[in-house]
Amino acid sequence: MKLANLIGQRFKEKPADCVIDSHALMVRGGFMKYVGNGIYSEFPALRRITAKIENIIRKEMDAIGGQEVLFPVVLPASLWEESGRYESVGNELVRFKDRNGSNHVLGMTHEEAAVHLVREYAQSYTKYPFMIYQLQRKFRDEARPRAGMIRVREFTMKDAYSFHTSQEDLDKYYELCFKAYNRIFQKAGVPEVITVKSDSGMMGGSVSHEYMLLTPVGEDTIVICNECGYRSNMEAAENRVENNTDAATAELQCIETPDCKTIEDVCAFLKSDVESSCKAVVYQKNSDDKFVVAFVRGDYEVNETKLRNLVGEEIHPAVITEDDCLVAGYIGPYNISSEAEFYLDVSLEGIAALVAGANKEGYHYTGLNLKRELGDVSYADISKVKEGGICPCCGKRSITIKRGIEVGNIFQLGTKYTKSMDMQYTDENGKSHYPVMGCYGIGVGRLAASICEAHHDEYGPVWPVSIAPWEVHICCLRADDEETKKTADGLYNSLLNDGIEVIYDDRKIRPGEMFSDADLIGAPVRVIVSPRNLKESSVEVTTRDKSVKEMVPVENAAEYIKELRSRLFAEIESHVENF
Amino acid sequence: MKLANLIGQRFKEKPADCVIDSHALMVRGGFMKYVGNGIYSEFPALRRITAKIENIIRKEMDAIGGQEVLFPVVLPASLWEESGRYESVGNELVRFKDRNGSNHVLGMTHEEAAVHLVREYAQSYTKYPFMIYQLQRKFRDEARPRAGMIRVREFTMKDAYSFHTSQEDLDKYYELCFKAYNRIFQKAGVPEVITVKSDSGMMGGSVSHEYMLLTPVGEDTIVICNECGYRSNMEAAENRVENNTDAATAELQCIETPDCKTIEDVCAFLKSDVESSCKAVVYQKNSDDKFVVAFVRGDYEVNETKLRNLVGEEIHPAVITEDDCLVAGYIGPYNISSEAEFYLDVSLEGIAALVAGANKEGYHYTGLNLKRELGDVSYADISKVKEGGICPCCGKRSITIKRGIEVGNIFQLGTKYTKSMDMQYTDENGKSHYPVMGCYGIGVGRLAASICEAHHDEYGPVWPVSIAPWEVHICCLRADDEETKKTADGLYNSLLNDGIEVIYDDRKIRPGEMFSDADLIGAPVRVIVSPRNLKESSVEVTTRDKSVKEMVPVENAAEYIKELRSRLFAEIESHVENF
Repeated sequence: MKLANLIGQRFKEKPADCVIDSHALMVRGGFMKYVGNGIYSEFPALRRITAKIENIIRKEMDAIGGQEVLFPVVLPASLWEESGRYESVGNELVRFKDRNGSNHVLGMTHEEAAVHLVREYAQSYTKYPFMIYQLQRKFRDEARPRAGMIRVREFTMKDAYSFHTSQEDLDKYYELCFKAYNRIFQKAGVPEVITVKSDSGMMGGSVSHEYMLLTPVGEDTIVICNECGYRSNMEAAENRVENNTDAATAELQCIETPDCKTIEDVCAFLKSDVESSCKAVVYQKNSDDKFVVAFVRGDYEVNETKLRNLVGEEIHPAVITEDDCLVAGYIGPYNISSEAEFYLDVSLEGIAALVAGANKEGYHYTGLNLKRELGDVSYADISKVKEGGICPCCGKRSITIKRGIEVGNIFQLGTKYTKSMDMQYTDENGKSHYPVMGCYGIGVGRLAASICEAHHDEYGPVWPVSIAPWEVHICCLRADDEETKKTADGLYNSLLNDGIEVIYDDRKIRPGEMFSDADLIGAPVRVIVSPRNLKESSVEVTTRDKSVKEMVPVENAAEYIKELRSRLFAEIESHVENF
Repeated sequence: MKLANLIGQRFKEKPADCVIDSHALMVRGGFMKYVGNGIYSEFPALRRITAKIENIIRKEMDAIGGQEVLFPVVLPASLWEESGRYESVGNELVRFKDRNGSNHVLGMTHEEAAVHLVREYAQSYTKYPFMIYQLQRKFRDEARPRAGMIRVREFTMKDAYSFHTSQEDLDKYYELCFKAYNRIFQKAGVPEVITVKSDSGMMGGSVSHEYMLLTPVGEDTIVICNECGYRSNMEAAENRVENNTDAATAELQCIETPDCKTIEDVCAFLKSDVESSCKAVVYQKNSDDKFVVAFVRGDYEVNETKLRNLVGEEIHPAVITEDDCLVAGYIGPYNISSEAEFYLDVSLEGIAALVAGANKEGYHYTGLNLKRELGDVSYADISKVKEGGICPCCGKRSITIKRGIEVGNIFQLGTKYTKSMDMQYTDENGKSHYPVMGCYGIGVGRLAASICEAHHDEYGPVWPVSIAPWEVHICCLRADDEETKKTADGLYNSLLNDGIEVIYDDRKIRPGEMFSDADLIGAPVRVIVSPRNLKESSVEVTTRDKSVKEMVPVENAAEYIKELRSRLFAEIESHVENF
């Protein structure tokens, strides 16, 4: 198409509200427009990208036997009551009443709808296994939408649901889907996406993986072992800590530590190591505001996800007043009020002599030995892994911490939904069972934005050819020059006839503006037709990533461009793993 | 794919809640599943159909220069406040508050979002004209969802919006879109879809057309002139009535008509013609409950749409109590209470001596001459056209009334939205103007269901090949017979390799069940491989519409089927008008 007709304007100024590059570039490039908090419209250039991503996904889902279906965006509350999530999910679930006063929700994920669709169909074991998927809009009322299309409230998602008669069968299919997901990201031009173990969160189930595109602006923290390849989302990463268990014990003493409210204060005052100190982080249960105290070694942080899973319900950071049973700044595990629930992190295990709060204003214990003082103590893993920490897989001190954007996830759901919604099948012997489920999600818009984040320069996106809005961008540098215009027109029509996707800029504007627009649009192949080039009977062909820059004779130009395009596709394909 | 793996069950019993054939067949055939009032999930068979319809639409929209975009389902109320529709649209617009208490709506149409998207882009006349479209879910909280996918609350819609610098330019594009719509329905296999003039309703604007698929179960009433080709939705159809203006007048008399509360009672009691009687139909304004009385000739019905447009606001059927200013059963235009607003229909014009209520319990006037009694009266067109009525176009008594399903509509919106949302462009002379808009909608699911309604027999849908879930259905009648199975497998694989869409039934079930499943799935070409046919070294090839039934030698079968499929596509193409 002609760039002059492309709907969506490009501009130079970085929008004030854009904190990450991809967001700024996708706004500046005329890809998306803000409609409301976490809600965007897609201009044609982005819609072309998301359509290509959708088709890549469809192909891979079909290849592993998936059947495309469509669930509604609006669901009756009764469906979510069946699973229990109408109550258990928080504010991110939009609930509303229709004109007749019936409760409805906006689908933020479709496990309930999936079970509802196949509950009658799959009553016999002979129907299993099977997988259904859809590409559909979802709405999650996120508290903090951010980073453009990375964390939005409304988005297009591919969500797939598989059903199995055994855990083994799910494992097998999960592995297949794992590979299909790799292929999707490879085909979309981001073979660098890695998988990490993840926390299953509100989805239920046990085993789960996230697909992460590593980038410093990612909102997820990823734990990677460079030795053995262990990878996990920080939320789910096991923390291993080795303390010197041979150190000498000491006498328990209660010492006055005036104005020492932080670990740093106390260590400085007592001239002790932070590694021998015990830090208290206090939460309250959402249900009854009861205090939950997490004790970790002074140099560790609490991993709230692991703590929440341990507590078994929602918690929030505590507000402690003078009337409460806890003495803020002086909380320790010994002689703590029985009204508070407390957990000891593995990082405290084996420390012979700890410094810890004495649960008394202005006092700390020294020489605290948890085993000696508390008797039969148990430790739980509720802390965050640190850079240089011990890999839980290979045991080496080889942990590095990176940041990434989650571009997909796969979950083993078990029977959480089939049980709660009473979906059963009959086996060979006429016995009833609940099928086990897997679910598999990819956010389409987020993937597009993540690819932009991982593949851009200061001038614009560098789209992989497989998802680029157009494959070739022709700049006719002097549309008022007859020969130049004729050559550019000819090339445009010739490429179009061969089925190449071309955006053609024949506007009568300055070259600088033309090039900066081309940079912002980000098509992988660029062709510059100009009077200067034509003096040499050539056009200039470059790639957006600057790896190619060639003068090509006009008569070979179309052929050369087609070959270059094929080469770019082949490059993408070379990263695609076969089953 | 193998039918054994197809998700969705088929069954014999007609579901109790299905009042029209297509609904029953699409439920029985495993196409759709009820989720909630007016909310359905699509099984794979239907998703394949809707995907094909979507692609047919995309192609035609692109062909007239449309650019695909995507608007959100959830829109901030502020956008709808700009256009005024946040207030003016009734209960069908779902309004809800998000977690922060901000008002939002579920998009039921996207004029506001369209203007919002291009408002900055299209500030110069040089950008015009242009058209954007999307395929997106919509939610309308219909009071009475019915007939399966025909009238639902949530649906996928293609909605397009065009922008122009003049009415002439809109007219030109409207004509183009008019043709593109014809092509869409022709390509979808329903060339019999007709266009009718329609009422613009809440969309604003003036000229509008609906695309109607005629069927006795349609919920729209269509007025057709068999002489001149005039076609209109009943809502918008002009009613022409010729009364005998030469008839003699009579003296006005107020006559006791005890217990005569209906037109029939009065005419019987007074031995007068219904054509000389004046019927009162009473409404109230939604805003203040003020009475609005529509007077029509006794043998006509009130057209509420035309009346509503005339009144200029929402009205509802009245409830009249004894305390009100109107005397139920005896309401007439002469001496009517000044508290009520009243309108006289064109069907009353020129009647010399009317029978009408006397606005007094138990009394009617006879000999009422509106011009004589009321003075300078005016008449408005607020009645429904009748079978055999006068065509407003050619003037002949040639009107027939049909029923149809609206499968698409096109509207000229004028500047309603660009003005209210302050979208302006600058012309060649630097002067600002509001662009004029057109909008163009097609409901995807409704079109699928309508095609089923128009193309089915008692056993199932007869899908046109261009939108059929599969093109060919192979029945292997004795999958336990080695040669039969081998032949059927071979044919299946051969057709698949040639890119034909095949559903293959190799289940070990009775032929009757196999055939009734094939009928319910409705693929246009059926191939029966059976030991009996193979004795003659042949397979049986039929079409779902029974126009073809051939024994074809096995070695030619694949070729014959491909040719038959091409013939069916050619048949569809033969109905497609070119521009």
